Amino acid sequence: MQKIRIGIVGYGNLGRGIEVGLRDDMELVAIFTRRPANRLGRKATDNKVKIVPLEEINTYTDKIDVLLLCGGSKTDLPQQGPTLAKQFNTVDAYDTHAKMPEYWTSMNESSLAGSKTSIVATGWDPGLFSLSRVLFDTILPQATTYTFWGRGLSQGHSEAVRSIPGVKYAAQYTIPSEEMLAQVRAAQIPDYDSHSAHEREVYVVTETGADQAKIEETIITMPDYFAGYTTRVYFISEEEFLAHHTSKPHGGSVIRVGETSTGTRSVTELNLQLASNPEFTASVMLAYARACYRLSEEGSYGTKTVFDVPLSYLSERSSEELIKEYL
Amino acid sequence: MQKIRIGIVGYGNLGRGIEVGLRDDMELVAIFTRRPANRLGRKATDNKVKIVPLEEINTYTDKIDVLLLCGGSKTDLPQQGPTLAKQFNTVDAYDTHAKMPEYWTSMNESSLAGSKTSIVATGWDPGLFSLSRVLFDTILPQATTYTFWGRGLSQGHSEAVRSIPGVKYAAQYTIPSEEMLAQVRAAQIPDYDSHSAHEREVYVVTETGADQAKIEETIITMPDYFAGYTTRVYFISEEEFLAHHTSKPHGGSVIRVGETSTGTRSVTELNLQLASNPEFTASVMLAYARACYRLSEEGSYGTKTVFDVPLSYLSERSSEELIKEYL
Repeated sequence: MQKIRIGIVGYGNLGRGIEVGLRDDMELVAIFTRRPANRLGRKATDNKVKIVPLEEINTYTDKIDVLLLCGGSKTDLPQQGPTLAKQFNTVDAYDTHAKMPEYWTSMNESSLAGSKTSIVATGWDPGLFSLSRVLFDTILPQATTYTFWGRGLSQGHSEAVRSIPGVKYAAQYTIPSEEMLAQVRAAQIPDYDSHSAHEREVYVVTETGADQAKIEETIITMPDYFAGYTTRVYFISEEEFLAHHTSKPHGGSVIRVGETSTGTRSVTELNLQLASNPEFTASVMLAYARACYRLSEEGSYGTKTVFDVPLSYLSERSSEELIKEYL
Repeated sequence: MQKIRIGIVGYGNLGRGIEVGLRDDMELVAIFTRRPANRLGRKATDNKVKIVPLEEINTYTDKIDVLLLCGGSKTDLPQQGPTLAKQFNTVDAYDTHAKMPEYWTSMNESSLAGSKTSIVATGWDPGLFSLSRVLFDTILPQATTYTFWGRGLSQGHSEAVRSIPGVKYAAQYTIPSEEMLAQVRAAQIPDYDSHSAHEREVYVVTETGADQAKIEETIITMPDYFAGYTTRVYFISEEEFLAHHTSKPHGGSVIRVGETSTGTRSVTELNLQLASNPEFTASVMLAYARACYRLSEEGSYGTKTVFDVPLSYLSERSSEELIKEYL
């Protein structure tokens, strides 16, 4: 059987996750990057996968079935996405919720113009969390949806702490409120706001001679990031940091609490605990890459979201097997 | 806007759940039953909904958009389903896992013959649990899936206990092993078998003078139903039974534990806690009734499963709203 020919654009944590998670029915043709191969920490011929400068991607239009866009949502994807979607089928994990409609529109114009298929905003949030929000919403119309994030490493918050003078390393974990989680799982409907639903834990390694009391104060009162949250700051050694705080766990829960008739409450929950946020995101993208390929083969062009794609398109199993073994 | 015209076949707990859960974009045209209206506990004109003898259903082919089949999976659906699927779009919650392929095949032949759409085996298991099994399987190929049922009332086990001489009322609850649940949620991969993963709790009201010790022994050693399980039997008063054991809670978890790379384990879980099993099952059927209507309008005939239907077809929200507010 012909394998689905995959290309990766961008070789950070997400791109590496794609490579490590590649499925049996796929083959990796090339990794496209703006960085020279010698800075990627691997030889250009490792695993027989070519490292190709991004500007040469035009020569690969006939060699790749689906391109996995692994750049950042802030600047990479809004630029690269619409350009590449004209020439390739693409899958991404675009995650800027506020700009979703405009990203979708510009991707859709490109995909349609090139008779290609793109699936945007896969991953887990957006992605699996979005699927759950819609599924639970449509099944329990009279209900309240809660979203909890964590326990997970927040890249943005960690960087904010690292920017404080005297901080050498920092890891910020977002932690859902155990109390509110327990209430919601017990079919209660507490008032929700992001501040009371989450706490923050910060592990910090300081430079020699740094004023830890002042750093802690700066963290706890930092507007937008920490002010208003229950925040715990722990100063630890460099050894401890490198041993315990370099992985990228994340996850969370989408929970809906609501009635099927007056007084009859149900609780539906999707819970994810991910040891590696980028690897899991990549794994979701790979499932949607298979769907993207199939949709494109069927001539179903334009931009899709997770709401548009039947799960059978994600699975490598036959319809018969799904009905017999999974239904 | 034209509402989706719904018919209900069978007016037990599930049929009542459909009636109470009807969505704003639907109207209930008729309830079809083999039982005369005066035995349904309601007047034939309640809520302006007609109670119609099942043998007259042929006269409703132009008046109903989707027929919700609420009969039992053992005898009702295998007979009624293929007959009705020739004349109507249908949605059911057929739940005999072992006979799924043959039921699907006979429904598909009928639906195609009549240029109709049917969606089979909706509900929560099969249904939402099936969706999770496939979604988690495709996202985490290197992993183990666990299914836990409960805490929930098992109709079959309750009836088995009621059949014992001297038993007046009985309610059997299936309870997942807290220990194994905790292990799996902690990303461990314990050996699973249904006996060690679940316990059984039985609440019994006996007739005056019944031998409770003998009844307990009969329950605990009953082959297929209780033998091999940890079973706790509680003898209670009729008052307590009627106060606390007449609702129909159920639920459970589908949990997948697996690796995205060597040693990097993720846990994905769908958890449902349903105060009313039949009402929630009905609520899932209603969401798929909307999808069934849309698929039929598009000319997508034949039998579908939950794996074939994009979530956007279930939702009453526009594609724009889903992208902006739910993605």
